[in-house]
Amino acid sequence: MTKQVDVKKRILEENEKAAARLRGCFRDAGTLVVNMISSPGSGKTTLLEATGAGLGGRHRLGVLVGDIATERDADRLRGTGMPARQILTGGSCHLDARQIDGAYSAWGSPKLDILVIENVGNLICPTSFDLGEDFKVALLSVAEGDDKPFKYPGIFSRAAVTLVTKTDLLPHVTFDMARVREEVRSLNPAATLLELSARTGEGMDRWLALLEERLAAKTAATSAAR
Amino acid sequence: MTKQVDVKKRILEENEKAAARLRGCFRDAGTLVVNMISSPGSGKTTLLEATGAGLGGRHRLGVLVGDIATERDADRLRGTGMPARQILTGGSCHLDARQIDGAYSAWGSPKLDILVIENVGNLICPTSFDLGEDFKVALLSVAEGDDKPFKYPGIFSRAAVTLVTKTDLLPHVTFDMARVREEVRSLNPAATLLELSARTGEGMDRWLALLEERLAAKTAATSAAR
Repeated sequence: MTKQVDVKKRILEENEKAAARLRGCFRDAGTLVVNMISSPGSGKTTLLEATGAGLGGRHRLGVLVGDIATERDADRLRGTGMPARQILTGGSCHLDARQIDGAYSAWGSPKLDILVIENVGNLICPTSFDLGEDFKVALLSVAEGDDKPFKYPGIFSRAAVTLVTKTDLLPHVTFDMARVREEVRSLNPAATLLELSARTGEGMDRWLALLEERLAAKTAATSAAR
Repeated sequence: MTKQVDVKKRILEENEKAAARLRGCFRDAGTLVVNMISSPGSGKTTLLEATGAGLGGRHRLGVLVGDIATERDADRLRGTGMPARQILTGGSCHLDARQIDGAYSAWGSPKLDILVIENVGNLICPTSFDLGEDFKVALLSVAEGDDKPFKYPGIFSRAAVTLVTKTDLLPHVTFDMARVREEVRSLNPAATLLELSARTGEGMDRWLALLEERLAAKTAATSAAR
């Protein structure tokens, strides 16, 4: 058991080093990086399609998509004209910083204003792996139920932003939004929680404004440091 | 990296041994054991509430529930009068056979006809860990989308039964049932796929009949071996 703990510790330490290198690389490129984490089927890819459309020509958005198998998500995003690369983990339940480093390097210089890393569909394992991002975004669809934050405290305490997705389904499911707000606030008082439906567009304006504010803040900080 | 692979291999070998012991123990007890695996929020606990009500007094159903944090699911099930025990994994993303062994031993002799192990909400990691079960059941809610089987081939190729849940939401989501049937059949030609809504009761009769058939077959096999 000690050997297991040692190996896990070493894996995370190596990941931290790779993430620190990546963070410098993203800073130099002036790219805002978001690590998007959720259960399978919470609506990450649909949200990214709507995000690309919503940002229009104002900012260049690109996506690195992690999946165990298939290029489906990257294909969907490329179908909308978005620069997207698929990372196949071959069974692994999360993305790590070295995988991001490899895929980003192989991409050349994509010159992105915003890079979203769409993590493997898994509310647990990706949480521990820093990918050099500026912040983590957790998605929770209303179809999954309002009891999830306290059941999966790791991600909801670490995500700077929680997006409650698929709000168009609210009339058809039992979901207490006040309970979710309260649990997320209790786990992470500084977190922002937004409700949206990528399908109907409801709430998308606040999500797009948040991305643009964070991008402007990063650009200002990078300029000041030069 | 070699050390990682060695550790993973040793963990799985130790799990196999513990699972073999458990399987003997469940056979001696005449208990049918189901390992239930899905994403968070696919409806495992709601299905178990409806399953307990549907089986009525005919068979004794008990549940071992795995979660990272909170006793919420076991509390819900005990609230319906069902024998249920919570296993808290303390961050771990799956249940292993030793945890089941510990929880089942501590339970005394619960004298169950059917034991459902409600795994941690995770479509990936629990797949590799044999818990001494008779078969695995995968749940996929229609809200998660119809592209999941090929994206998560591990579970859908190993589950003897796939349950497409929350069919009451079908009018409100985009979900191609024929596509899901085709992908599941392609990954696992012997698998049974059932569609149901624990909320409305639609399709529950076929799920209950499947459980009762499997229980009868196990009972007959156990008697023949004595």
